[in-house]
Amino acid sequence: MNIRLSRSVLLRGLLFWHRKAAIFTESVIGISCFLRKSPVGGYSNSSGDPTMFEKYWRQMGDKATVVIPGWQHISYFSDVTNICWFLEPKFAKEVERVHKAVGNAVTEGRHIVVGTGSSQLYLAALYALSAHDLTEPVSVVSEAPYYSSYPSMTDCLKSGLYKWMGDARSFNKEGAYIELVTSPNNPDGHIRRSVVNRSEGILVHDLAYYWPQYTPISSPADHDLMLFTVSKSTGHAGMRIGWALVKDREIASRMTKFIELNTIGVSKDSQLRAAKILEVISDSSERAGSSAEGESFFEFSYNLMSERWKLLREAVEHSGSFSLPEFRPGFCTFLNRVSESQPAFAWMKCERDIEDCESFLQGHKIFTRGGKHFGVGTEYVRISMLDRDDNFHLLVKRLSAIHI
Amino acid sequence: MNIRLSRSVLLRGLLFWHRKAAIFTESVIGISCFLRKSPVGGYSNSSGDPTMFEKYWRQMGDKATVVIPGWQHISYFSDVTNICWFLEPKFAKEVERVHKAVGNAVTEGRHIVVGTGSSQLYLAALYALSAHDLTEPVSVVSEAPYYSSYPSMTDCLKSGLYKWMGDARSFNKEGAYIELVTSPNNPDGHIRRSVVNRSEGILVHDLAYYWPQYTPISSPADHDLMLFTVSKSTGHAGMRIGWALVKDREIASRMTKFIELNTIGVSKDSQLRAAKILEVISDSSERAGSSAEGESFFEFSYNLMSERWKLLREAVEHSGSFSLPEFRPGFCTFLNRVSESQPAFAWMKCERDIEDCESFLQGHKIFTRGGKHFGVGTEYVRISMLDRDDNFHLLVKRLSAIHI
Repeated sequence: MNIRLSRSVLLRGLLFWHRKAAIFTESVIGISCFLRKSPVGGYSNSSGDPTMFEKYWRQMGDKATVVIPGWQHISYFSDVTNICWFLEPKFAKEVERVHKAVGNAVTEGRHIVVGTGSSQLYLAALYALSAHDLTEPVSVVSEAPYYSSYPSMTDCLKSGLYKWMGDARSFNKEGAYIELVTSPNNPDGHIRRSVVNRSEGILVHDLAYYWPQYTPISSPADHDLMLFTVSKSTGHAGMRIGWALVKDREIASRMTKFIELNTIGVSKDSQLRAAKILEVISDSSERAGSSAEGESFFEFSYNLMSERWKLLREAVEHSGSFSLPEFRPGFCTFLNRVSESQPAFAWMKCERDIEDCESFLQGHKIFTRGGKHFGVGTEYVRISMLDRDDNFHLLVKRLSAIHI
Repeated sequence: MNIRLSRSVLLRGLLFWHRKAAIFTESVIGISCFLRKSPVGGYSNSSGDPTMFEKYWRQMGDKATVVIPGWQHISYFSDVTNICWFLEPKFAKEVERVHKAVGNAVTEGRHIVVGTGSSQLYLAALYALSAHDLTEPVSVVSEAPYYSSYPSMTDCLKSGLYKWMGDARSFNKEGAYIELVTSPNNPDGHIRRSVVNRSEGILVHDLAYYWPQYTPISSPADHDLMLFTVSKSTGHAGMRIGWALVKDREIASRMTKFIELNTIGVSKDSQLRAAKILEVISDSSERAGSSAEGESFFEFSYNLMSERWKLLREAVEHSGSFSLPEFRPGFCTFLNRVSESQPAFAWMKCERDIEDCESFLQGHKIFTRGGKHFGVGTEYVRISMLDRDDNFHLLVKRLSAIHI
């Protein structure tokens, strides 16, 4: 137990690391950016931390509380008869129930794979869909602007199985590829479809934002591999719980294998808590329209997003220096009426001669994430719409006051 | 939302995958083996599921219960002033406290990095210690018999950063390497030191079993990068919580970065539950020897391991067909007396002309993990000592009855 690591060796390792760590110094994943840039007194809205539903969960009181005795759920295993042996049956049941209540995804004939957030499920999907015997890695693409973490998550280990190849629109390499379709899209909120459309392609649908508070639910999504997460649907990012709905048994089995090799399963405690939260949401949705106590979660969150988008659009109009995407309303089968697209992020463009919108806004104490992280120009920034009320109101106040 | 994945493309992907997936069909990680082999009525003790402390936690009752309201801990962030920004301060405090109470690791001047089990921290350490600008991956080695999951965890993504090179004793490649030192060792329970001892080496110490119930605590471990987990220390495998004690700030920062890219942090719920469990253990340890209510966790678990090893050695002696490692007792600074080594796994050898001990035992309805998974011969098997009482007693009964 007394062998020590030579300091000189450690330092040499560090030097190796520093010399050319381009991918890391240009990190695009949200959290580091947030930590780097969040100044005292500055308004930071680059990270997408979804704290805005906290108020709803306070209102729910004990109904949403989970109690776990010390002797329960201590085993690695949740259900050895399931392909995903670490999937808690209660969580699986509530996932099926909430999709049925909301009508946003087909669960019949699907395997559920639980992950430590949908990030881990994205990596599990890459592992499961890659051809492990090829001499070169499979290409991974997504239409720009794409989720800013895809490139660094895909390439951080220099995997021989898969490789980030950028914007799907300009992808012209022969052979197998995986296309990521995020719909509604992060960062711009638009409904997306595959754009490459070649026979060698495999699609992964990231549906983190396909919930009634963000977009009209047109029909139950029915793709081969769909990813969801509690982070954006219920606002519980700290749980780190996501799930995949997977049509093919072998793919589900390989995704499970990846999670076994990566973290030997997924926190039981968070699965149980997520089950409780989803249960409250389904209960509140099924009660909606009745005179029973409590507001439906999706009514609450839809109204909150609606109010925020109204304030943001007013601020942008008042300023005259920026523009926002426009969306057509659509019929929402869940709300049973025409509803608006009001994305979790605002994809804002600096309209005058401002070349670097992120830096420009930083000068006004508004901290966003610039377009280059999403594979497009610096005239764009992504603004999170999910922060606490105080921060959001500070944002619209500051934006409104900018006149170029 | 209506683009479908072509079935033929998916099937082609599957065929690619099946053609030459040697590393996966020879999977050595525990859980799959368990699931594949566990028959109805058979005694399966290959997985190392640590359920044997359940009884203790039942005795503790409400003291070990955690209650989490729906509105708490919803953010990605735990402490933005900490390098490991997703580390819950209460968990960090209890980690420091339990190491101080037990005296098994130095925490002063260390950074704590929390992980989704120590598996994720092992991968985070490889990422953090690799030289990202080299043309070839750094070698990863460990003395055989080594933890059976190291090879597949290291190589599953065909990383360009690091590569599994097997037994450290036969490692003779020039250049940088990472050596894993598991002490006490999984599978054989022996205290380990580095064996390569070249200046280009960086060490990772996996100290999952350096707790008083398994081995005498000789002094606080004081290495540069040490890994611990609740799975084997407290018996809460389902939480998926581990922690690293890291001397170098840059290494801790890069490990944090890996976990950000991999899962954007670690379940807050499980960190809070782990904090509660560690708190109960420290409380019970500080009370030990006094007349206060309740037994010390480590007294309880030491006595249980002691009883099990006694029964196992009696069964092996009665059978006459096997042998077990011998350990010298040592002074345990925590128990303040001479104590025994009684590892979490029994590393058993078939002594007669049995070439494949795993298959031989399988014929007697005893399901173990064979030596080849650990980099040695098939005359060895690993048996978990951590199962529930009923299963353990079935094991010793069946072993005892084997006479060749």
